Amino acid sequence: MNFLEERIVKDGVVKEGNVLKVDSFLNHQMDIKLLDQMGAEFKRRFADKPINKILTIEASGIGIACVAAQHFNVPVVFAKKSQSINLDGDMYVAEVESFTHKCINHVIVAQKFLTPADHVLIIDDFLANGCALQGLIQIVQSSGATVEGIGIAIEKGFQSGGRIIRNLGFQLESLAIVDGMNAETGEIWFRDQSKMKKETGETSEGAETVGRSSTLD
Amino acid sequence: MNFLEERIVKDGVVKEGNVLKVDSFLNHQMDIKLLDQMGAEFKRRFADKPINKILTIEASGIGIACVAAQHFNVPVVFAKKSQSINLDGDMYVAEVESFTHKCINHVIVAQKFLTPADHVLIIDDFLANGCALQGLIQIVQSSGATVEGIGIAIEKGFQSGGRIIRNLGFQLESLAIVDGMNAETGEIWFRDQSKMKKETGETSEGAETVGRSSTLD
Repeated sequence: MNFLEERIVKDGVVKEGNVLKVDSFLNHQMDIKLLDQMGAEFKRRFADKPINKILTIEASGIGIACVAAQHFNVPVVFAKKSQSINLDGDMYVAEVESFTHKCINHVIVAQKFLTPADHVLIIDDFLANGCALQGLIQIVQSSGATVEGIGIAIEKGFQSGGRIIRNLGFQLESLAIVDGMNAETGEIWFRDQSKMKKETGETSEGAETVGRSSTLD
Repeated sequence: MNFLEERIVKDGVVKEGNVLKVDSFLNHQMDIKLLDQMGAEFKRRFADKPINKILTIEASGIGIACVAAQHFNVPVVFAKKSQSINLDGDMYVAEVESFTHKCINHVIVAQKFLTPADHVLIIDDFLANGCALQGLIQIVQSSGATVEGIGIAIEKGFQSGGRIIRNLGFQLESLAIVDGMNAETGEIWFRDQSKMKKETGETSEGAETVGRSSTLD
């Protein structure tokens, strides 16, 4: 297990409906030393990419992105989420379905902060169905900028987001991939990322049979 | 002028209705080196306080708080904003009026992340009427924790928030206090903070006559 997987086992809480609560260290209270370790690991995994900007989405991606940005020495742009659109200047807008809140959100970035000269690393805390992430990718591509990679803290490997994004050819690096959880025993199964090269684009049948509810979005 | 005032003059944009846009470096795109300078300055101003936790509010406070937290070596908790309350576990909730969006928001922090043992520095990007900040103070006090201080990036000195908070006896440190702006000329007037001791609790009549609209929630 890596440092994040160890922390998830130690302080994460598995709830019914495949909910993994990590609010004591990642997305309500934030352990800044852990975020710094995550930033260093993202830098290691994307060391060969000419990244000049990090893009994330409010709210819980912002802390991770800002601490990671210190390792890349680049600015952060965070996309705003809004149910309504109040266009003030020129904005890139993507529609994103929220399964948690059962509504359509708009993901918005001011056009002046993404240009064809930008090489973007997208960072977020969770990846499950991938709707929010697909919205961010769409926005980067609309701007003519390049998606150099995607860094995620925790991927729910039993949902389809990661597979779809990898199948599209993006370098998606998730620091922990949860392939299954048991709310009764509190057990969490992580994907062995040393095998990721051959597993890319696939998840096991066992993982696929696990349900689809999520804390993402 | 200090480093933040200089940056506001260089890259801030004054709009009609006393709106100051700082989205190119502070609250949409974030200059992480600037945030680091701000964190160092907050640490200098609160050096004598036994701070063990930073509290902020989503979304644009999070980046500033996380980078500042590295200077204090403490975790960050961010309060969530919600129009509806979905109580999952025990939460501290404060009602906060949003002048911008003309609605009541709830500011929410899980009770387990604030205890009587906590000595809290509250950090946010903007202070105008102070409603959001009053909600955060109320939450800290509900928990039995101590508010050791409040660190703000930009205070609108012509609105009442700062005066009220200082009159309540809190150590409120705003890195830049804007006492007036002119949307036609783009001019911005900053308060001379070297005179703050005698000005505490007062703003000039001139500043008070400037309008009250704001981008702050």
